[in-house]
Amino acid sequence: MAEMLTIPAELEPVQAAILSAMDRVRERFDEQLASDLPPVDRLVRHVERYRGKMLRPMLVLAGGLAGHPRIGQTAPEDLGGLLSADHITVAAVCEMVHMATLVHDDVLDDADTRRRGQTINRLHGNETAVILGDLLIAGSYHLCSQLDSQRSALIIGRVSMDMCAGELLQLHHRGDFSLDEPTYFEIVQRKTAALIAASCELGAIQSGATAKGISALASFGRSIGVAFQIQDDLLDLTGREDVIGKPVGKDLEKSKLTLPVIHHLSSVGIEARGASLRLLERACSESIAAAGAGAEMVEMLRSTGSIQYAGRVARELVQSAKADLKAIENSGVKKLLIVMADAVVERAL
Amino acid sequence: MAEMLTIPAELEPVQAAILSAMDRVRERFDEQLASDLPPVDRLVRHVERYRGKMLRPMLVLAGGLAGHPRIGQTAPEDLGGLLSADHITVAAVCEMVHMATLVHDDVLDDADTRRRGQTINRLHGNETAVILGDLLIAGSYHLCSQLDSQRSALIIGRVSMDMCAGELLQLHHRGDFSLDEPTYFEIVQRKTAALIAASCELGAIQSGATAKGISALASFGRSIGVAFQIQDDLLDLTGREDVIGKPVGKDLEKSKLTLPVIHHLSSVGIEARGASLRLLERACSESIAAAGAGAEMVEMLRSTGSIQYAGRVARELVQSAKADLKAIENSGVKKLLIVMADAVVERAL
Repeated sequence: MAEMLTIPAELEPVQAAILSAMDRVRERFDEQLASDLPPVDRLVRHVERYRGKMLRPMLVLAGGLAGHPRIGQTAPEDLGGLLSADHITVAAVCEMVHMATLVHDDVLDDADTRRRGQTINRLHGNETAVILGDLLIAGSYHLCSQLDSQRSALIIGRVSMDMCAGELLQLHHRGDFSLDEPTYFEIVQRKTAALIAASCELGAIQSGATAKGISALASFGRSIGVAFQIQDDLLDLTGREDVIGKPVGKDLEKSKLTLPVIHHLSSVGIEARGASLRLLERACSESIAAAGAGAEMVEMLRSTGSIQYAGRVARELVQSAKADLKAIENSGVKKLLIVMADAVVERAL
Repeated sequence: MAEMLTIPAELEPVQAAILSAMDRVRERFDEQLASDLPPVDRLVRHVERYRGKMLRPMLVLAGGLAGHPRIGQTAPEDLGGLLSADHITVAAVCEMVHMATLVHDDVLDDADTRRRGQTINRLHGNETAVILGDLLIAGSYHLCSQLDSQRSALIIGRVSMDMCAGELLQLHHRGDFSLDEPTYFEIVQRKTAALIAASCELGAIQSGATAKGISALASFGRSIGVAFQIQDDLLDLTGREDVIGKPVGKDLEKSKLTLPVIHHLSSVGIEARGASLRLLERACSESIAAAGAGAEMVEMLRSTGSIQYAGRVARELVQSAKADLKAIENSGVKKLLIVMADAVVERAL
C-alpha cells in the first residue's frame, strides 16, 4: 500500500525503513513454503500472483514501530533497528493467512464455473486451489509457532476461526434480500477487520508496547479494516469508472448484498421497491454487465443516498481509527499510519 | 477403532480407560468449534457425520499411556489418571486436523461433479466445504496453541504442511501410469503416515516419555500409518466383496494409481501390458463398476501377484511397527497397540 501512497517528504525515511523490512518479509514467506518436492515447489511459486499490496504485513511493521517503547527516541534512519526477526515472522504470518483466503476464494461452485465458461484445462483447478490454500494456512501456523510464546499463535488461531465464521455467515445469507446492517457488520468484522486488527496488534505485541498501546493499535486496525471492506464493496458496485468505465458487480453476481444495497432496500419507498428488487435479481442471476444495467444500478443506489451513506460510514470509521491513535506517542510512523488510514477511503482501487 | 477390535479380556480395562477419555476428547472438540452464530454452529454440527473410528485420538491416548514413565506401576483401573487435560487436547487436535482433510476431500472438481450427476441443490457445496474445512484447521491450531509449549504446535504445523505436500504430489501424478513405488511412498508418508506418527508421538510427549520412547512410538505410528494406507488402497481395488460384492474403484475413478496397480504395471509382460493399460484407462474414465470390469481388474492384478505383494508389504510394515515397541516397557496398553497394529491389516473396512 505504501508504494501507492502519496506521502509527505518527511515520511519518506519511515516508508523506506518499512519497505526495506518488507523484503525480509517476502524472504521469510518464501523460505517457509519452499518444498524439497519439485511439483510442490512449482505450485508454491504460483502463489506469488496473489501477492498484492501487502497491507497486513505493512501494518504489522508500522504498528510495531508506532507502538514501540523507544519510538520517541529513535531517528528515522534507525527505525529498522527497532524491527526484530519476530516482527518479520509475524508479518509473514499475517500475509500468509490472508493469501490462503484469496486462494480459497478461487474455489468455484458449479454455478459460477458454468457461468464463467470454464474450460477443460481448469478441471483440476478446484482441488489444487483447496490444497494450496491449506498449505499456506499450515505454513502460517508453523511459522507462528516459531515465536517465543503462544500469545501470537492464539491470536492468529482465534482470528482465523473468526474469518471462517464470517465467510460461513456470508454464505448463509447469500441471496437474502432481508440481510440487515448489524449482520453485514458481523460478517465484515470477522472476515476482514479481524485480521487487519490483529496485524496492528501483533506488531505492537512484538515491540513490547504497553497494554494501552496494543489496544489502541488493535482498535485502529479494526476500524480501518471495516472501512476497507466498505470501500471494497462500494467500488464493486460503482466500479472504477475512471479505469474501466463500468461497475464490476462481482458481489451481486455471487448474490452477496453489501452496505449500499442493504441501505437502499431499507430506505426505498414501497412503489420503487419492486423495481429495485427486480434489478437486483437480474444482477444476481446474470451479472450487471450482461444486464447492461450498470448505470441503472448506480442511479438506483444514489436515489436513496445509499452510495453517499456507505462512503460516510467508511469515512467516519477512518476518523475513529485516527482518534484511536491519540493514545500512542507522536512519531513519523504514527503519521504514516494516519496517511494509510486516509488512503483506505480515498483509494479508487 | 477399538470398538471394532476383538480384544482379549485382559485388555478390556485398558480399552475402557481409553474409551472413557475419548468422551472427553469429543467434548473438547465440540467445545472448540462451538459458535455464537447459529448458522455457523449448525454447520459445525454437520461435521459430526465425518467422525469415524477416531483412530488418531485413540493413538494419542494409547501412545501416551504406553510411553508414560509410570505405566509400569499403574493398575489398569487407574490408567485414566495418567491422562491429563493436555492429552485430551492433543487428541482433539489430531482428530480435527484429520477431519479437515476429509471435509476438503469432498470438494469436487468439475469433472467429478458432472460424472456423479450433482444436482442443483449441491450448488453451494464446494464453497461451504472449503470454509468448513478451514474452520476445522483453524480450530485445531487454536486448540494446539493452548498447550504449555509450542513443541506440539510445531509438530502439528509441520505435519500439516507435509500432508498438503503429499496431496499436491498425488494430484500432480494423477493419470500418470509411470508413477513409481518410491514416489507412491513419498505421497503416502506425507498424506497419511505423518499424522498417524504424530498422534503417537504427541501422546508420548505429553506423558513426559523418554526421547527413546517418543521416537519408538513415532516410528510405530509411521509404519502402521503406511500399512493403513496400503490396506485402504487394496480394499478400494478388491472391494468389500463380502459386504457389497464388487470392487469400489474410487481411486482409479480419480486416476489415482496405488501400490497394487504400480506393482502390476512394473511386472506385467509386454504382451499383456497393452490390455492392462486399456483396462486401467477405462477404469479411470468411466469407473470400474460402470465398465462392468471389477472382477477382470482383480484378476489382472492377481495375475502378477500384485494383490499379494501389497498385502505382504503392509504386513511387513505392521511387523516392523510391533518391533519398534520393543523399546518401550511392557504393559497392557502396549498389548493393545499391538492388537491395533494387527487390526490395520486384518480389517475389511
